Amino acid sequence: MGDQRFDPLLEMMQREGLEAVAFVPGANFRRIFIRDFHLMERPLVIIVPVEGEPVAIVPALEMASFEPLKFPGPVFAWRDEEGYAAAFERAAAALPRLASAKTFGLEAQRMRAFEHMALQRVFPEAGFTDAHGAISSIRLRKTADEIAKLKEAIRISEAALEATLGEVREGLTEREVESILVRQMFAHGAHGLAFEPIVAAGDNSAQPHAQARADYRIRRGDALLFDFGASYEGYNADITRTFFVGEVSEHDRAFYDTVLAANERGKAVTRAGVSANHVDDAVQKVLEGSQFAAFIRHKTGHGLGLDVHEAPQIMRGNDAVLEAGMVFTVEPGLYRHGECGVRIEDDVVVTEDGVECLTSFPRELRIVG
Amino acid sequence: MGDQRFDPLLEMMQREGLEAVAFVPGANFRRIFIRDFHLMERPLVIIVPVEGEPVAIVPALEMASFEPLKFPGPVFAWRDEEGYAAAFERAAAALPRLASAKTFGLEAQRMRAFEHMALQRVFPEAGFTDAHGAISSIRLRKTADEIAKLKEAIRISEAALEATLGEVREGLTEREVESILVRQMFAHGAHGLAFEPIVAAGDNSAQPHAQARADYRIRRGDALLFDFGASYEGYNADITRTFFVGEVSEHDRAFYDTVLAANERGKAVTRAGVSANHVDDAVQKVLEGSQFAAFIRHKTGHGLGLDVHEAPQIMRGNDAVLEAGMVFTVEPGLYRHGECGVRIEDDVVVTEDGVECLTSFPRELRIVG
Repeated sequence: MGDQRFDPLLEMMQREGLEAVAFVPGANFRRIFIRDFHLMERPLVIIVPVEGEPVAIVPALEMASFEPLKFPGPVFAWRDEEGYAAAFERAAAALPRLASAKTFGLEAQRMRAFEHMALQRVFPEAGFTDAHGAISSIRLRKTADEIAKLKEAIRISEAALEATLGEVREGLTEREVESILVRQMFAHGAHGLAFEPIVAAGDNSAQPHAQARADYRIRRGDALLFDFGASYEGYNADITRTFFVGEVSEHDRAFYDTVLAANERGKAVTRAGVSANHVDDAVQKVLEGSQFAAFIRHKTGHGLGLDVHEAPQIMRGNDAVLEAGMVFTVEPGLYRHGECGVRIEDDVVVTEDGVECLTSFPRELRIVG
Repeated sequence: MGDQRFDPLLEMMQREGLEAVAFVPGANFRRIFIRDFHLMERPLVIIVPVEGEPVAIVPALEMASFEPLKFPGPVFAWRDEEGYAAAFERAAAALPRLASAKTFGLEAQRMRAFEHMALQRVFPEAGFTDAHGAISSIRLRKTADEIAKLKEAIRISEAALEATLGEVREGLTEREVESILVRQMFAHGAHGLAFEPIVAAGDNSAQPHAQARADYRIRRGDALLFDFGASYEGYNADITRTFFVGEVSEHDRAFYDTVLAANERGKAVTRAGVSANHVDDAVQKVLEGSQFAAFIRHKTGHGLGLDVHEAPQIMRGNDAVLEAGMVFTVEPGLYRHGECGVRIEDDVVVTEDGVECLTSFPRELRIVG
């Protein structure tokens, strides 16, 4: 179509044999158009056929914001009063070749069921497939500009963590510590939060996706786990560090050091050309070979960029080959249910001969409070 | 099933003739179970048949967090290594009566296409429908506890706005003002942001969903629009106020006062028993009857609670009757493209004989900076 912004998508579609793809505002939209839109109850859907012009279905309310994108095909605006069904019909009429498409790929982890239903109604014979991974593959290899934004998100996050630790003391609730952390992130320049931070102490640290409690006060001997990140220009940091409050038992120190060894092993074995499976396998073997093998709960990590969780998944069974420019987390953890959890998470970018670790906050066991 | 948490849902299903519903983490999940989960790339789906036990499909990683919910039916956990398809198959096998369900309602504005596809695969004969509105109707009438949480979110937001105005001066960028506002929200006790705030000056204020610009410095005569809100215990404030920087022209003052009159009219005509159409019609007539009728761009408002945008939609054509306890925004606006936009948004709760306005930040035209 002559609009180079769509080239990576069209190349992917030819490679994957997709006749069309549809996507909505979010990370892929932002990568293509540089700016993003809110994903809301008013559908905004882009349909890109492998041949011919793309079409857009856009809420009339958003047209003033959409026009600057200079979309290279027909745009079907719809108003709240009429609803969106007719705009989907007009879009389908503009794409007659897709009526019998056998491979119509959707950004299915982002698109909502009601948008899928609207597409199914106007393309009743089409075969829809989940092409979320294929579409998102246009974001796998980060550019230098993207790495710079990730570094800034991480710099802000790490400065906020250090400032937060200066305020931590026994008797604060998890929620109070979370509030300090959030305040510090914005004070250090965050544009937003990559996700709702996890601040979990004691038994709560043993839940991989804990929520900060308003009624639990941290106390001596507790593990204190922070899993958090700032966002900057849409790019997300994702960092975990685990500390101990006041003191640490020898048992917990050994527990911690096992996780740290696994974290270091993951970074040591990563380089362009090895598989995601290879990295997770090396990390898991450190944990499995320890006295704490019973407390493994999850894989090594996930890709990171405009989405907090994206490809590549660093897990056994994923034979995807790592390439220079891919960014992911290395975040082994161990969880003694009801007692104590430790996770140490770094963000790394793959290079031809190893990794560049984007996170630099110290990993040695640290006593706080 | 004897678990009273599901009663409002089951009553709705009988009323609407739904044989089953499926929903995912989010506002409805939180209203039923009191606590929420992250909505992420790992599907967590609850299926509730109108008769018999509900079933849950849960990532194994989340089981420690899920168990405290004391879910009253079978739970099918799945691990990353095996994927989620088998858990959906086991769930379908546990619900044989749904194989031929003609009315299987989905929370379709929240559930993603890939979860819809997974359900379609294991219930290939079922008729799926968008039941988002019906499912969310269990949240329409707010309890006293919910109103109290909304009031706290609004109190935090308004205190943050006042503190922000104290720091506003000519020459700051929109992004800098946004950053001050966010910092002030957390400093005043916000648990999170209801949404990414809009801070828009000059021509940008004329875009209903503007994004703060890093390269535009506010200047004398600009409109300065804030559309923002804190969240507290999951409940969201949503407030808009528009100010003028340094001075205001007579034309802009008349423009502003027209919007203010529409805002006041909306609150004056609201009470239990009138329709959403009635409220929007009264508001639009104020705008349409003014010299600025050409600059109308949107309806009066939307419901507010655990979701920032929920029912009831306050718009012409919506004959839904307002009931005591419903909460929504009254947010008329006018937008002179390329020049100036004004929006004034309050949050109100319907009472038997009128409204209680939850927002109290002054609405009279105010010069700042």
